Amino acid sequence: MASSVAAVKANCKKQTKCSDHVKELNNVRPKQPFFFLKPTSSIVLPGQGPVVRPKGVNLHYEVELGLVMGKEVKDLDPTDEQGAMDAIDSYFLGIDMSARNIQEEAKKKGLPWSISKGFDTFLPISHPIPKSTIPDPHNALIWLKVNNQVRQHDSTELMLFRIPRLVSDISKVMTLEKGDLILTGTPKGVGPVGTGDVMTAGLEVSGKEVKEASLEVP
Amino acid sequence: MASSVAAVKANCKKQTKCSDHVKELNNVRPKQPFFFLKPTSSIVLPGQGPVVRPKGVNLHYEVELGLVMGKEVKDLDPTDEQGAMDAIDSYFLGIDMSARNIQEEAKKKGLPWSISKGFDTFLPISHPIPKSTIPDPHNALIWLKVNNQVRQHDSTELMLFRIPRLVSDISKVMTLEKGDLILTGTPKGVGPVGTGDVMTAGLEVSGKEVKEASLEVP
Ligand SMILES: [Mg+2]
Ligand SMILES: [Mg+2]
Ligand SMILES: [Mg+2]
Repeated sequence: MASSVAAVKANCKKQTKCSDHVKELNNVRPKQPFFFLKPTSSIVLPGQGPVVRPKGVNLHYEVELGLVMGKEVKDLDPTDEQGAMDAIDSYFLGIDMSARNIQEEAKKKGLPWSISKGFDTFLPISHPIPKSTIPDPHNALIWLKVNNQVRQHDSTELMLFRIPRLVSDISKVMTLEKGDLILTGTPKGVGPVGTGDVMTAGLEVSGKEVKEASLEVP
Repeated sequence: MASSVAAVKANCKKQTKCSDHVKELNNVRPKQPFFFLKPTSSIVLPGQGPVVRPKGVNLHYEVELGLVMGKEVKDLDPTDEQGAMDAIDSYFLGIDMSARNIQEEAKKKGLPWSISKGFDTFLPISHPIPKSTIPDPHNALIWLKVNNQVRQHDSTELMLFRIPRLVSDISKVMTLEKGDLILTGTPKGVGPVGTGDVMTAGLEVSGKEVKEASLEVP
């Protein structure tokens, strides 16, 4: 299992299609990628059960492309695109579940985000996606439906900070280790889910669904 | 090695001796213990080298009593003191190194604390301290010196939230696993260290230094 999970906040370009996530969350467009940690105890493996909404929580989904690191990365040069790509072992699709009301209160009060992002079951992930299946990780379509209604559906080309920059920035703070997971940020369309809702999510490359990425979470 | 490190923020009682840490950081006295995660990559084992100050960082020490969890704990009742104590395998002394300027900026902007708390080498820890060595973890003295000058020196009796409450609150968010570490919060006296400074830290029980707790960090 992963040793650490780093997740990037609000990472989408100033484009009509995607900038809405920044607006949705009243975020200021960042000059650098900020990130936070999710505990490994939040991970739900494929088919391993539902996301549990803690009492009083406004539970939001955020579908994201994930990276599984294949080796140690420390202080990576942001221009070393090849180095970043070589350090990735495989991809996954993940849903960065967020207790939005707790997160908003934490933001207001200057408190850490760990509670709002870290409850048990707050990170359903797909099977690993072989690297060769996604030849260009900045040209894949990720989507999420709630009860079969499309809520998120955007290309990873809309990332404000691209993968080499994310890996570099994180590696300048904390050494990435083999098996660490990185969530790369979500496109527009985040919103609430309640009891009984079923989330499905997937990833398309060149118009074809990637089977390993397929997620269904009650 | 630990799978997760949870650290409790500003946890000291309204007493002259200790409340200064809350003032020092302009924190509002909390109604509940808040906590954040440090990555396992921040851990420095005894004798394994210096704390590295990242460029431009106002680096602060925070000496803290640490818990090593001995079993899984999920949704623990806060009144179950025995359950909390039984779940602890051993203790340790740790220094929760903090990039204070980055943390202050994150607080102002409502950003996550992970960068300010998570740089490599930001968690020097001592050897494990056998549980029997600290018969009452709320009655131990922890201290930290910089270049042999005392900077922190207070009893763990000053914790605002005691250990069973901390373990309970964390376990209601994230299931604690065997090997997880918890930092219980620092007493007053936090302050900066620079290049060339040497931190020493220790823990006394009934007026006697506990040898396993002894830390020296260049
Ligand atoms: Mg997210
Ligand atoms: Mg971890
Ligand atoms: Mg601390």
